[in-house]
Amino acid sequence: MSSHREEANQVAFKRLVDADPVIVDIQRAGDVVPGMKPNMILLSGPPLPWDQYVGRPRRAALFAAVHEGLAATTDEADEKLRRGEIVVENTHNHDVAGSHTGVHTASMPVFVVEDRASGARGYCTPFEGNGPTRLTFGTYGEDSVERLRFVAEVLAPTLGEAIRRSGGIAVKPLIERAIQLGDEVHLITTAATMLFQRAVTPALVDLGRERRDEVQKCLEFLGRADHTFVRIALASCKATSNAASGVEGSSLVTVMAQTCAGFGIRVSGLGEEWICSPQQITLEEGKIENRAMLEDRGEWAADSFVIETMGLGAFVGAACSSMLYWLDSPASALVERTTSMYAITHGEHPTFRIPILKFRGAPCGIDLFKVLQTGVAPVVHGFLPTRTGVTAGIWRVPMEPFRKAAAAYEERYGR
Amino acid sequence: MSSHREEANQVAFKRLVDADPVIVDIQRAGDVVPGMKPNMILLSGPPLPWDQYVGRPRRAALFAAVHEGLAATTDEADEKLRRGEIVVENTHNHDVAGSHTGVHTASMPVFVVEDRASGARGYCTPFEGNGPTRLTFGTYGEDSVERLRFVAEVLAPTLGEAIRRSGGIAVKPLIERAIQLGDEVHLITTAATMLFQRAVTPALVDLGRERRDEVQKCLEFLGRADHTFVRIALASCKATSNAASGVEGSSLVTVMAQTCAGFGIRVSGLGEEWICSPQQITLEEGKIENRAMLEDRGEWAADSFVIETMGLGAFVGAACSSMLYWLDSPASALVERTTSMYAITHGEHPTFRIPILKFRGAPCGIDLFKVLQTGVAPVVHGFLPTRTGVTAGIWRVPMEPFRKAAAAYEERYGR
Repeated sequence: MSSHREEANQVAFKRLVDADPVIVDIQRAGDVVPGMKPNMILLSGPPLPWDQYVGRPRRAALFAAVHEGLAATTDEADEKLRRGEIVVENTHNHDVAGSHTGVHTASMPVFVVEDRASGARGYCTPFEGNGPTRLTFGTYGEDSVERLRFVAEVLAPTLGEAIRRSGGIAVKPLIERAIQLGDEVHLITTAATMLFQRAVTPALVDLGRERRDEVQKCLEFLGRADHTFVRIALASCKATSNAASGVEGSSLVTVMAQTCAGFGIRVSGLGEEWICSPQQITLEEGKIENRAMLEDRGEWAADSFVIETMGLGAFVGAACSSMLYWLDSPASALVERTTSMYAITHGEHPTFRIPILKFRGAPCGIDLFKVLQTGVAPVVHGFLPTRTGVTAGIWRVPMEPFRKAAAAYEERYGR
Repeated sequence: MSSHREEANQVAFKRLVDADPVIVDIQRAGDVVPGMKPNMILLSGPPLPWDQYVGRPRRAALFAAVHEGLAATTDEADEKLRRGEIVVENTHNHDVAGSHTGVHTASMPVFVVEDRASGARGYCTPFEGNGPTRLTFGTYGEDSVERLRFVAEVLAPTLGEAIRRSGGIAVKPLIERAIQLGDEVHLITTAATMLFQRAVTPALVDLGRERRDEVQKCLEFLGRADHTFVRIALASCKATSNAASGVEGSSLVTVMAQTCAGFGIRVSGLGEEWICSPQQITLEEGKIENRAMLEDRGEWAADSFVIETMGLGAFVGAACSSMLYWLDSPASALVERTTSMYAITHGEHPTFRIPILKFRGAPCGIDLFKVLQTGVAPVVHGFLPTRTGVTAGIWRVPMEPFRKAAAAYEERYGR
């Protein structure tokens, strides 16, 4: 390896592990997300023209247009999207990392997370709770309207005010601790959500003197909304990813994401360029009975692998025995899978440590050339889209984007 | 095995696993602990005459007498203890299970935990935080006075009021969840403490409208007092132990405890009889550098193995990778040790499940005859008393009390 690449990777790695993301606020996406417009809908993954969205992301955008009041019906929304009166853009290009289809509209509140080391920011909507329909899954009904309204009208203003009164809540110590408590910080964020709630509670107690009912409603919600922290993790990982991006000569991967049209990555030394291929991620582990229920991955989109890209999720999966709930395999499989990621990463995270590996730092900073040399593609955690709902699984990322990225890298920097 | 014994063990086991401990209050020990008197000091383990207490329990009692205002100096306290003007009794006989030396005086606040299934109660002082001196370790100074005062004057009345307003906080769901989050609920209660705090927070928010400063001080304290829940676990396990005690014909062990004079157990079918032997528990695992620092176990006393007796602690140690921080061995050792306890227990806990064992129920209900048949003594987690402080380790209980208990059982019930 050229010493220049090694040095560049060291710079990018350092930015990645030194990032100090802090939750500073919750605000309307339209007011804070760069380039966000009232007639804009954001979706997960590399950018696509509207007519290439199918399945869940397509339905999510149509419902979101109605939810936002941009169209009266999904038919009208489709028409306006075709004509460009409503525009779809991708989350990452707006410093957003979304959950599932990643749907964001201007009126939706977002966590604002700032990396205090670099100033980079990331955004993501709060978790709105589970229910029969979920806008981000591409389903929509009275129950999801009600939950989205609760988030916008009660949770966001109350929690946002508490966060502001707290002077910001540092994310890194929460993640560090949550891994000790068995979170892998992607599918399982129970401990991190509690740690976040605990951190914001003193401000909520103060706020409770003025807004008792709202505070109690927020606490009641947070007490059963264990996925709350994944949205904070997404915003934090996006900010961290931004911090590690654009390092001249670095071959570290900064984003992995999926659309209906395939899988895409970004590489630090290649800036904001998306390198995509039509292959989808493939299911490596999940309960056998759920495999038969799998939807076509092409009908989904996903940003959340930015969590693995930043050294969390499957990369600390060994820490999370609760994952076994969703798997047929024994605990050793989680350990082996996490351990195999050390071969394709630049280093070990100095703060995020895995107890079951005797507190070894998480494998962190995927080097596209190590992926190609070893033939080991990154693993990611993700919810399985099944015909009846979702369940969890472990997926393998396709190799093709890494091959294309290596070619692009060599074209730009030489061999 | 006689079918009568089997049936009796099934009754005791059912009481053990069906116990539904609820934190109902925090009150002064003198007001709620059965038989507690103003001139009484409770200490861990089977009962001993005052002149047989040495080392830390002895010092803890002397300092406690001064702390309680029963004597002006430790010399005077010793004199009064010899003369019987101050009396020492053991915790368990007063429905108390203490931490370390287990020192309790009448003015100290205690968690009041009630098993809603049987009505049995258990009591334990709240954790008062770490510091240079700790009364329960047998050390005492300005810092421990200050912390004990904070607990008595701020924490206990505030948290007590919040618990009363909550209508009681069920312990079982907290423990169930905490094991999923990597607590073994003896040395490590980080998740359980957070879960408890979350459960009491709505009432604290309401109370914050009247007593803002006290509530904020409590939150600030709980945020760094990760051992808070072990005191709740002790009171809960004591209540559960009481519920499972006194089942005619049962050979299940209901208490394991240590004093300066050795190790003692109680057996359900033998009621409140203590069966003791002079052997101490032996260190099985702990960092090698700490072994050299070990104090004489005879200078300690400990109640907290009632946690293992109720199927927690080392019995769910496999769930707690963070234990590896204190051990030289790999994660597999924790799994093997927990797994080996199935051979000596009556059954598997239907609620407390271990993720890394594919959610198998915790081994629960030590049968003294299984201990003798297999030659496998129970393992327990405990803090190592070292010359400079404490560290954690895994200990093996002596066999002798089980042999003596079998003899006592056969004498009473026949072979």
